[in-house]
Amino acid sequence: MSKINLNNTDSFSSRHIGPNARETKKMLDVIGIGSVDALISETVPSSIRRDGDLNIPDALSEFQYLNELKQTAGLNKVFKSYIGLGYYNTITPAVIRRNVLENPGWYTQYTPYQAEIAQGRLEAILNFQTMICDLTSMPIANASLLDEGTAAAEAMNMFFHTKNKKGSEFNKIFVSEECFPQTIDVIRTRAMPLGIEVVVGNHASASIDHSYFAVVLQYPAKSGEVYDYKNIVDAIHAVNGYVVAAADMMSLALLTPPGEWGADCVVGNSQRFGVPMGYGGPHAAYFATTEEFKRVLPGRIIGVSIDRNNNRALRMALQTREQHIRREKATSNICTAQALLAIMASMYAVYHGQEGVKNIATRIHGLTQTLAEQLTNGGCKILTNHFFDTLTVEVSDIEAIRARALQHQMNFNYGNNTVGIALDETTQVADVAKIVAVMTGNAVSAMAEEREMSQLSLAKNSVRTSPILSNEIFNVYHSESRMLRYIKSLEDKDLSLTKSMIALGSCTMKLNATAELEPISWPEFAHMHPFAPLDQAAGYQKMIKELESYLNEITGFDATSLQPNSGAQGEYAGLMVIRAYQKDRGESHRNVILIPSSAHGTNPASAAMTGASIVVTACDDEGNIDVADLKAKAELHSANLCGLMVTYPSTHGVFESSIKEVCQIIHDNGGQVYMDGANMNAQVGLTSPGLIGADVCHLNLHKTFAIPHGGGGPGMGPICVKAHLAPFLPGNPMVKTGGDKAIHAISAAPWGSASILLISYGYIKMLGKKGVTDATKYAILNANYIKERLGKTYDVLYVGKEHGRVAHELILDFRPFKHTLNVEVEDVAKRLMDYGFHAPTVSFPVAGTIMIEPTESEDLMELDRFCDAMLSIREEIRAIENGADKNNNVLKNAPHTMGDCFNENWSFPYSKHQAAFPLPYVSVAKFWPSVARVNGSFGDRNLICTCAPIEAYMDQAVEA
Amino acid sequence: MSKINLNNTDSFSSRHIGPNARETKKMLDVIGIGSVDALISETVPSSIRRDGDLNIPDALSEFQYLNELKQTAGLNKVFKSYIGLGYYNTITPAVIRRNVLENPGWYTQYTPYQAEIAQGRLEAILNFQTMICDLTSMPIANASLLDEGTAAAEAMNMFFHTKNKKGSEFNKIFVSEECFPQTIDVIRTRAMPLGIEVVVGNHASASIDHSYFAVVLQYPAKSGEVYDYKNIVDAIHAVNGYVVAAADMMSLALLTPPGEWGADCVVGNSQRFGVPMGYGGPHAAYFATTEEFKRVLPGRIIGVSIDRNNNRALRMALQTREQHIRREKATSNICTAQALLAIMASMYAVYHGQEGVKNIATRIHGLTQTLAEQLTNGGCKILTNHFFDTLTVEVSDIEAIRARALQHQMNFNYGNNTVGIALDETTQVADVAKIVAVMTGNAVSAMAEEREMSQLSLAKNSVRTSPILSNEIFNVYHSESRMLRYIKSLEDKDLSLTKSMIALGSCTMKLNATAELEPISWPEFAHMHPFAPLDQAAGYQKMIKELESYLNEITGFDATSLQPNSGAQGEYAGLMVIRAYQKDRGESHRNVILIPSSAHGTNPASAAMTGASIVVTACDDEGNIDVADLKAKAELHSANLCGLMVTYPSTHGVFESSIKEVCQIIHDNGGQVYMDGANMNAQVGLTSPGLIGADVCHLNLHKTFAIPHGGGGPGMGPICVKAHLAPFLPGNPMVKTGGDKAIHAISAAPWGSASILLISYGYIKMLGKKGVTDATKYAILNANYIKERLGKTYDVLYVGKEHGRVAHELILDFRPFKHTLNVEVEDVAKRLMDYGFHAPTVSFPVAGTIMIEPTESEDLMELDRFCDAMLSIREEIRAIENGADKNNNVLKNAPHTMGDCFNENWSFPYSKHQAAFPLPYVSVAKFWPSVARVNGSFGDRNLICTCAPIEAYMDQAVEA
Repeated sequence: MSKINLNNTDSFSSRHIGPNARETKKMLDVIGIGSVDALISETVPSSIRRDGDLNIPDALSEFQYLNELKQTAGLNKVFKSYIGLGYYNTITPAVIRRNVLENPGWYTQYTPYQAEIAQGRLEAILNFQTMICDLTSMPIANASLLDEGTAAAEAMNMFFHTKNKKGSEFNKIFVSEECFPQTIDVIRTRAMPLGIEVVVGNHASASIDHSYFAVVLQYPAKSGEVYDYKNIVDAIHAVNGYVVAAADMMSLALLTPPGEWGADCVVGNSQRFGVPMGYGGPHAAYFATTEEFKRVLPGRIIGVSIDRNNNRALRMALQTREQHIRREKATSNICTAQALLAIMASMYAVYHGQEGVKNIATRIHGLTQTLAEQLTNGGCKILTNHFFDTLTVEVSDIEAIRARALQHQMNFNYGNNTVGIALDETTQVADVAKIVAVMTGNAVSAMAEEREMSQLSLAKNSVRTSPILSNEIFNVYHSESRMLRYIKSLEDKDLSLTKSMIALGSCTMKLNATAELEPISWPEFAHMHPFAPLDQAAGYQKMIKELESYLNEITGFDATSLQPNSGAQGEYAGLMVIRAYQKDRGESHRNVILIPSSAHGTNPASAAMTGASIVVTACDDEGNIDVADLKAKAELHSANLCGLMVTYPSTHGVFESSIKEVCQIIHDNGGQVYMDGANMNAQVGLTSPGLIGADVCHLNLHKTFAIPHGGGGPGMGPICVKAHLAPFLPGNPMVKTGGDKAIHAISAAPWGSASILLISYGYIKMLGKKGVTDATKYAILNANYIKERLGKTYDVLYVGKEHGRVAHELILDFRPFKHTLNVEVEDVAKRLMDYGFHAPTVSFPVAGTIMIEPTESEDLMELDRFCDAMLSIREEIRAIENGADKNNNVLKNAPHTMGDCFNENWSFPYSKHQAAFPLPYVSVAKFWPSVARVNGSFGDRNLICTCAPIEAYMDQAVEA
Repeated sequence: MSKINLNNTDSFSSRHIGPNARETKKMLDVIGIGSVDALISETVPSSIRRDGDLNIPDALSEFQYLNELKQTAGLNKVFKSYIGLGYYNTITPAVIRRNVLENPGWYTQYTPYQAEIAQGRLEAILNFQTMICDLTSMPIANASLLDEGTAAAEAMNMFFHTKNKKGSEFNKIFVSEECFPQTIDVIRTRAMPLGIEVVVGNHASASIDHSYFAVVLQYPAKSGEVYDYKNIVDAIHAVNGYVVAAADMMSLALLTPPGEWGADCVVGNSQRFGVPMGYGGPHAAYFATTEEFKRVLPGRIIGVSIDRNNNRALRMALQTREQHIRREKATSNICTAQALLAIMASMYAVYHGQEGVKNIATRIHGLTQTLAEQLTNGGCKILTNHFFDTLTVEVSDIEAIRARALQHQMNFNYGNNTVGIALDETTQVADVAKIVAVMTGNAVSAMAEEREMSQLSLAKNSVRTSPILSNEIFNVYHSESRMLRYIKSLEDKDLSLTKSMIALGSCTMKLNATAELEPISWPEFAHMHPFAPLDQAAGYQKMIKELESYLNEITGFDATSLQPNSGAQGEYAGLMVIRAYQKDRGESHRNVILIPSSAHGTNPASAAMTGASIVVTACDDEGNIDVADLKAKAELHSANLCGLMVTYPSTHGVFESSIKEVCQIIHDNGGQVYMDGANMNAQVGLTSPGLIGADVCHLNLHKTFAIPHGGGGPGMGPICVKAHLAPFLPGNPMVKTGGDKAIHAISAAPWGSASILLISYGYIKMLGKKGVTDATKYAILNANYIKERLGKTYDVLYVGKEHGRVAHELILDFRPFKHTLNVEVEDVAKRLMDYGFHAPTVSFPVAGTIMIEPTESEDLMELDRFCDAMLSIREEIRAIENGADKNNNVLKNAPHTMGDCFNENWSFPYSKHQAAFPLPYVSVAKFWPSVARVNGSFGDRNLICTCAPIEAYMDQAVEA
């Protein structure tokens, strides 16, 4: 170093990227190549390499970035929000904020596919399901969905397909005009391709006939009214249709739950259970239904089962329902849930418990009553007769009120001649006084801080009589010490990135840097309502615009929509934009989507949801697209070709040099190219979807752009498009966003889960143009280093034709061991737990293989630890080759628990030490799976998806 | 509930206090009493009970408190600080902030007396010691001290006692006038009672003769000058005196370390290694010296030893040096360190490493050179010839500069006709430009962002040539993923409050609530320089004034000094205030301090430091003060009686009903009563030091008032006094504080570790008048519940005479088991680890006993888990009574490690299951000690206090 940069406090790039210069040298030596750039040249086809640097800013240090962002945050003005409409101020208990939301032990966890090392978050999500079932009074609930709007659309979808097993005669859905506008909009989006007619109207005057398959009702309604929906419920049930209730969770502590007045499905947002609004998200929506639908309800379900030792063990239940299994037969593409936020909401219920939640709801309602009385006294006309927390007030001079409200820094929900006011957990008596003053224009006298419970008035038939949250789990952890220990005890059961690398192929489990995460909790970002006036959200808008421009540059496209809340939503959004474009050109008949056989299961699932006809194209033996087959099918369907869905580099982890030709073929036949962005981590800075010739792509911000996986969500799946598709980017009914010819909303909030966009923004700002490109290079270096170390021992499937390089991930083939040795790839995955590792991706994209993606964030020491484990496992397989028992060996019995090792009847044909400490490094920090291998099918046969009484846990402990 | 409070979002009290109403009922039934208040009446003598509620505000909810505090924070104006003087802006790496400073797994740990379950923080502190030895080039360093000023005073103390083994002929110390003012002031405070003459002057012209025992030099000096101290070093060494260097750690990356130019002791502040200034603290001071002093250096030392299995194990070394052992023979009362902050600083060095730290120092120096050049170009006269980061500039119109500086929101160190400017890690080129503009009054043109390394100029003989931070530990953990995993791996080795209760008698390990801790990290509080103008710190000042008033009310006193940084400092401060008061009255001859034999060892140690003559008074068989003996001794020493030091309730955990009489006796004989506040958790709201008749007390804010123990610090020990002592409360040379006749500074910063005062402030605000009193009541309830459950099985020492109640803690006697069964109390402590518990206090105040203090924060489930463990251990002792081997049993071999249990040569006469899972609940979340019982004396004989090369760890792992 001959020069010093006087401004550079630190290099974030050297923190994010694992290998340092010394390690890089060692790795290149092992690979046998002179430099990282030489490796990249052998890996990425020159025909698609970009020239020159990305046009994004130079890197900021962590310190510089956080200082700059603090300025940006200052541009947000967090007024008091009384807007409601599904988003409410809430109080996140500090113990939950610090120890869940801000704790990498919780937010860096992966989706709990490997149940044995995920019992902590599985329990927390089971608590969530239990809470939802309890509050809604429904027997079954899933592990969360993306938002209330999509949850309602999923309900529509489920009932549509249930009613229309053959044909589609029942094609109408009635949606109350008092549903939230964004919910109605998302329903419209999803209804269109399925040919569903959405009838929006007044539920009281709706005439429901046999063509209806469902009704959707908001509870309490948008106006705040707590309606008695008996008539319309009876009417739709009379025609064997179904009732979808979109219900506010907090209100259900006091109101008769939808499960008691006839709902067949209850959906809603759990945000106000302690999850900050975050300008739209992320929050966990819920979805509860009856037993009848347990095998068709969308999303993940956590269920209770048993492990090898017959101990209670949780795992994701009924996985065969999921989209990645059902592919084009799927009726939903839901994949990611909102695990972290569902966990927060469940912890809120655990902490407050039965009494606490009821008290909070009661207080909110009491304040709303006070407000109603004071407004009435002040001369206002309240249109809401029966309310929980929201009043609609008829007003004459709305602009005067708006002006006073802005002056006093508060936002209402303004109609034409009405003002909607929604109170929440944060409201204080002084706030009510201020609202009254703003509404009436007159100061008010002091109000009582207390209220007689007997004064609370809900319509008699809407008062909940059944108990809430009576399960033991909601009645134990009420002191902070106990809550903290509960949170930590669950965290300790789970293997997250805080313990070791999680080399999940296609999931890009890279560093989620603290400096990227910290701003999420800043009040300026955390407490913004998604429908706040734009000028109050200037900080958010600045960040969003910059991020859009960076993503445009990185993808080589012209416009971006940040609305989709997951990769699957991005796929759906991208396809809908293509179809809108084609419709606009008078080509709405184009409905054939080509999908290579190697594609991720969500691709056909998403395509199916758009009503497309799916044609699968072949791959060759090396896993590459069979160009001839693709060309033939494109030409065959030329008249109706909608487009191609393609992943690049392929799901096999290879940069296919034919990609430009493939795109050209599609374009030549009138189609559009949709690129799945799952593997963008191998492209950034080196090539781009634009360069390879695609028209639209989605990006998994929770993969390439450092949003943590949160134990199964949140994710973000924005789409980027070429200019001709830009006018069709999705809109939002409350806030202008998207293109001039915007399609209906894809998700409820204008910019999706806006608050976590900060993570990707920070990632790009702190890495800068050079860093984001280096990240790609090192991701490729790390994968090729693993290939070099493991390639002599295992078969590596699908390498680059010319130089034998892999991209950012590689596939190891375990099929050779199956038939002769009875070693399944699952055995290897479970055995890795004994070494302290989470398995890479199992049996995707090829059954019987594992796919390893180390990412750039892992250093040489960690890569070597992992390779050592894999090589050691190969020796364990060799022992079977050499005669060890095929059905009783260290792989078949994996993982081994502490309980196993302390069982005095240890009868396995190997030592406990061999079982639990197969390599020296394991003993340095042994991570024990908390259950033995889980029996999934037992649980599916005996489906239990809510908490058992606490005694069950204690019984288990005694036996252990 | 017939009424609802419309403002009450939540009750913090119900979060802080463990037992809920249902549990309270159960516990009262077990105790056999009708109500908590009835229990209190039987426990606290009516003669000292206070009437009526405390005059402090009603409780705020967590939400209300944090909102209100945000307003208060807004009153602080965080200007750019270029003041320096030992406090610098620093960049805390986010991964350290989130995962150490903000992580209860780190901050709720106790002092690592139980080494087997504390290897994580012991390693982190060993890293700290290694870092200090390396940077200072000294062979031995301690585990941190409270601040630079007291560290310098401790050095003086150490050398004074070394030189004056007999008599006190070497009684002069030379202190450079270019030492920081607060350091000089603390030295004066400590010198006075020892009869040391402090000569402050210019080091270049000092004449050092045989009467000097030491010199104290600042490096770089206050002016920024990097002096060559050769002459004065030679001079003091020539008379066999010692050199104390107070050195800036960051500068040592570039400058010749004091160990290479003759220092015998190097002290300083590690704050700028990533620890926020926090308006004065907490930060960790360091103290490094030569081998010669290893058995007399103050404070804790972490050393390397071995465990029962001959594996490497860390523990606190040389504990017999410590004050609590040496009592009145102690020359220092240092007890608490600043563990959490030392750990942060060491993590900063681990993360940045050799190159990183050097780069940071180089950049700071480069910027300072740029500043010097620009100022010179702008016509300024720079007085500093050789500098690292600080310049002293001669100015004519200082007020004009001050005005411009304030306008541009920056603070300098203003002299009479000089301005001191200290740069730091956060300084950017643009900041330098602004400084120049403010200093010269003229705008400056753009400056280069880069600088040739060769342009860097330090005086040749001051350039460091030895390498820095070359140990492996500083050259591995540089990527954030690896750093995070390192931090977490250490955390996982340690038992903290996140795992289970830590019922440490006299240490009050209560809940450290998240909402109390969160504001510490808020920038408005974190980044305030302690010498910032008061009007910029209006938020801090508001908080401080309120907290003082609450503490006055709680103690029944009239004035408070928040300056002392630990309980021991509080003791010293209190006694010094008493002595100043007596001197002021012409009674400076009063120098006899009475101390009951049951007192904590710091009491006599503190008294000795004030030069007092200590007279120990007897206790009776019940552990109460022998009033007759006390009276006799008070009367005997009446003419010279300075006062009494007394703990209340007594260290035996009993409310002595004679306390008022005792205080009266002291007063009658002309003395003052000092009350040790260690047991205030049994007093708050029920009685007070004022009510019992004391004149002064200290409070352990890290006990009673919820500051976490941080693994061995920070602590806070403010003193509260009656009005007659208020004028003497300690001052500060930089900021007016304390009384009109203030004694010299007790610690370096005006309000000690100001930022953590927020924790105690939050505690009081959120509990309110009722909550703080309820906390006391439940602390007493919990202790009496344990007494009831264990009292039939174990002997409980010292209960209240009338009703047999204990106060907030209780003592169990294990002496009966020692001689007949060879069961030591230490065996019980170690065995508790196998049950997942940290031992209560061992052998204090009575050897062979344990003292249990559950605090109010533990609920019934946790109390029962602990009691079950204790009862189970009694059965294990019974097995020895029934013939089990006295030297080879489950107690003697405790704790049992995972390695033990996987040793195939298991030869203990009991099962592994019995060793590791003695009760069913243990298996629910087994916590494994990471080493077996540590051999302390081996390590003391073979003292190693720095890191071994990393290979040593790997070797150990292989063997495990």
